[in-house]
Amino acid sequence: MNLRPLGDRVVLKHLEAEEKTQSGIILTGAAKEKPQEAEVIAVGPGGIVDGEKVEMQVKVGDKVIYSKYAGTDVTLDKEEYIIVKQSDILAIVE
Amino acid sequence: MNLRPLGDRVVLKHLEAEEKTQSGIILTGAAKEKPQEAEVIAVGPGGIVDGEKVEMQVKVGDKVIYSKYAGTDVTLDKEEYIIVKQSDILAIVE
Amino acid sequence: MNLRPLGDRVVLKHLEAEEKTQSGIILTGAAKEKPQEAEVIAVGPGGIVDGEKVEMQVKVGDKVIYSKYAGTDVTLDKEEYIIVKQSDILAIVE
Amino acid sequence: MNLRPLGDRVVLKHLEAEEKTQSGIILTGAAKEKPQEAEVIAVGPGGIVDGEKVEMQVKVGDKVIYSKYAGTDVTLDKEEYIIVKQSDILAIVE
Amino acid sequence: MNLRPLGDRVVLKHLEAEEKTQSGIILTGAAKEKPQEAEVIAVGPGGIVDGEKVEMQVKVGDKVIYSKYAGTDVTLDKEEYIIVKQSDILAIVE
Amino acid sequence: MNLRPLGDRVVLKHLEAEEKTQSGIILTGAAKEKPQEAEVIAVGPGGIVDGEKVEMQVKVGDKVIYSKYAGTDVTLDKEEYIIVKQSDILAIVE
Amino acid sequence: MNLRPLGDRVVLKHLEAEEKTQSGIILTGAAKEKPQEAEVIAVGPGGIVDGEKVEMQVKVGDKVIYSKYAGTDVTLDKEEYIIVKQSDILAIVE
Repeated sequence: MNLRPLGDRVVLKHLEAEEKTQSGIILTGAAKEKPQEAEVIAVGPGGIVDGEKVEMQVKVGDKVIYSKYAGTDVTLDKEEYIIVKQSDILAIVE
Repeated sequence: MNLRPLGDRVVLKHLEAEEKTQSGIILTGAAKEKPQEAEVIAVGPGGIVDGEKVEMQVKVGDKVIYSKYAGTDVTLDKEEYIIVKQSDILAIVE
Repeated sequence: MNLRPLGDRVVLKHLEAEEKTQSGIILTGAAKEKPQEAEVIAVGPGGIVDGEKVEMQVKVGDKVIYSKYAGTDVTLDKEEYIIVKQSDILAIVE
Repeated sequence: MNLRPLGDRVVLKHLEAEEKTQSGIILTGAAKEKPQEAEVIAVGPGGIVDGEKVEMQVKVGDKVIYSKYAGTDVTLDKEEYIIVKQSDILAIVE
Repeated sequence: MNLRPLGDRVVLKHLEAEEKTQSGIILTGAAKEKPQEAEVIAVGPGGIVDGEKVEMQVKVGDKVIYSKYAGTDVTLDKEEYIIVKQSDILAIVE
Repeated sequence: MNLRPLGDRVVLKHLEAEEKTQSGIILTGAAKEKPQEAEVIAVGPGGIVDGEKVEMQVKVGDKVIYSKYAGTDVTLDKEEYIIVKQSDILAIVE
Repeated sequence: MNLRPLGDRVVLKHLEAEEKTQSGIILTGAAKEKPQEAEVIAVGPGGIVDGEKVEMQVKVGDKVIYSKYAGTDVTLDKEEYIIVKQSDILAIVE
C-alpha cells in the first residue's frame, strides 16, 4: 500500500531517533514552525499548482530539513509519514 | 439523486470504520486540519477556477487522503458525503 | 419586481422545509460555513470579475448545495432570497 | 455641489423609509455585512482599478442591493450619500 | 519647502473648519475608516506602483473626499498635511 | 564599513534633532505607522522584487518622509541607520 | 555534511560574539522582526519560486544583515545555522 502525492506534495518519513543522535543534528524551531529532518519517500508530479508551474527539486531518498507547520501526519501500515508541499522543504542534507 | 460538483470540487465518501481497521490506517491531524481517508464519488469538470486552469487528477473510485479543514459535510439519501476542492486532497492511496 | 445579480452572483431561494424532508437531505455544516440546499432563481452574466474571466455553470431551476458563509439574505415581495457568488455553490443536486 | 466618484466607485442614496415599506423589501444582514437598498446617484469611470480592468455595470437611477461593509457615509448639502465600490453591489432591483 | 510625493501618493491639506461649515458637509465614518474632505496640494507621478500601472486622476486644487485609514499626517512649516495613496481618495467634490 | 541594500531597499539616516527643530517639521503618526524624516544614505539596485519590476526613485542625499512600520534599525560603527523598502517612503522634502 | 538550500533560500551562520564587538555593530529590532548579522554559508539556486523568477544576489562569504522573522534555526554537526529566504536579507555589509 503506497501513498502517491498530488501536485507539489511530498511524502516524508521521519528518520529514526537513533539515527538522529548519530548525525548529531539538533533542531530548534520557532513557535509556529517546527523544523524536522526526514527522508523523502514519494514525490508528487509537480506541474501547475495554484496556477503556477512547479518543478520538483527533491527525489526519493533525499534527506531534507522541512518546516512542519502545514504538514499532515499519516500512519499507513503502522509506518508514520508526513505529507508536505515542496515549498515547506528548506534544504537537502548532503 | 446525485451530486454533480462544480469547478475543481470533488465529492468524497468516508470509508467504513471496519475497512479502516482492515487497512490498518490510523490518521492523526493537526488542530485545524483533520486528515481523513475517503473514496472519490464524483469529480468536478475542473477548468478555470479562480482564474487559474485546474486539471483534475483524481478519478471516481480513487482512495484518497484529504485535509478536511475546508470541506463541507452533506447527507443525501441517508448517505454521508464530503465536498472538498481537489487542492485539499493530499495523496492517493494505492 | 426582480433581482438581477451582477457579475458572478447568483440569486437562490431556499427549498421548502417539506420538500427537504421528502428528499431526505440533512445538511451539517462546519462552524463558519453552513451548507444549504436551494434553487437557482437568477444568474449573473459572469464575465470579468475581480480581473478573472468567470463562466456561469449553473442555470435557473438548478437545485444546488451552497456554502452560506459569504451570502446575503434579501426579502423581496415577502419572498426570501439569498445572493451568493457562484464560487460559493459546491454542487448541483440531480 | 456634486460628488464625482473615482475608479470603480459608485455614489448611492438610500431610498426613503416610506418607499421601502411600499416595495415590501425587508433586508436582513450578516454580522459584518449589512445589505441595503439604494439608488445610484453617480458612477465612476471604471477603467484600470488595482491593476484590473473594470467595466461599470450600473447606471444612474438603478435601484440596487449593496453590501454596506466597506462603504463610506457622506453628507453633502444635507443629503446623505454612500460611496461604495461596484463590487459591493450585489444585484439590481427591477 | 515642499513635499514631492512618490508613486501614486497624494499630499492633501484639510479644509478650514469654517469652510466646512459653509459647504454644509458633515462626514461620518466607519470605525476603521474616517472619511474627510481635503484639498489636493501635490500629486505623485503615478507610473508602476506595486507592479500595476497607475494613472493619476486628481490634480492640484481638487477638493476630495478621502478615507483616512492608511494616511499619514505630516506637519511642515507649521502647516498640516496628509499623505494618502490615490486609491484612498473616494470622490472629487465639484 | 558600508551597508549595500538589496532589491528595493533603501538605507536611511535620521536627521539630527537640532536640524529637525530648524526646519520646523513636526511629525505625528498613526498607531501602527510612525512617519519620520530622514536622509537617504544608500539605495538598492531595484530590479525584479517579489516578481515586480521596481525602478528606484530616490537618490543618495534626498531628504524623505517615510513610514517606519516595516523598517529595521541598524547601528554600524556607532552610527544608526534605518533600512526600509522604497514603498515605505512617502515623499521627498524639497 | 552540508545543507543545500532549495529555491531562494540561503543558509546563514551567525558571526561570533567577539567579532560583533570588534565591528562595533549593535542591532536593535522591532518586536516581530529581530535583525541580525550573519555570514552566507550556502545559496539556493533561485529560479522560479512561488511563480516568480528569483535571481540570487548574495554569494557565499557575504556578511549580511537579515530579518530573522521567518527564519529557521538548524544545528548540524554542532554548528548552528539559520535558513532564510533571500528576501529576508536586508543589506550586505561591506
